[in-house]
Amino acid sequence: MLPHHPHRDQIMLENVLSALSNPTRLAVVKELARTGPRSCGSLLPDISKSTLTHHWRALRDAGVVWQQPSGRENILTLRHEDLDARFPGLLDKIIEVAGS
Amino acid sequence: MLPHHPHRDQIMLENVLSALSNPTRLAVVKELARTGPRSCGSLLPDISKSTLTHHWRALRDAGVVWQQPSGRENILTLRHEDLDARFPGLLDKIIEVAGS
Repeated sequence: MLPHHPHRDQIMLENVLSALSNPTRLAVVKELARTGPRSCGSLLPDISKSTLTHHWRALRDAGVVWQQPSGRENILTLRHEDLDARFPGLLDKIIEVAGS
Repeated sequence: MLPHHPHRDQIMLENVLSALSNPTRLAVVKELARTGPRSCGSLLPDISKSTLTHHWRALRDAGVVWQQPSGRENILTLRHEDLDARFPGLLDKIIEVAGS
């Protein structure tokens, strides 16, 4: 497990909203909700590595995703259950209003 | 009417989430939802004027509030109807999960 994953109780609403206030990160979250866990490398192939690293960190530090090493890759998993425990229905609502 | 109020169709999800990703602004929005329109001067009396000006602008530019002059004051009104038209149920959900 990489560092900087907040425990469920440490997930703060302002950090979640801030993480999702970026269109690229919101698109990633929608994709993870649709498909389940994904390797970082399979998402957003046209964006530079340094920009992606920034986005993964923003999502991870806010408690929105787990980022776990698996072989030579990192796997992103949406923390849907943790987010629903803290803020019931919020993630689904944001994904819903974000449209297609 | 002061400048920088987006039309309903121009309200963007990322801007709304960003505006609400600050605890002070979220507290103001909750208060406006509870009480209805308020003068800027009646909210957050302990915060400096320049900081407040920044917060009102962030809320106004994102389309979260109307800021309208009334005599010597400015009145803040939550754009609940516009937000619900763009993102049904989102504002109520965020206020709900923000707790008391």
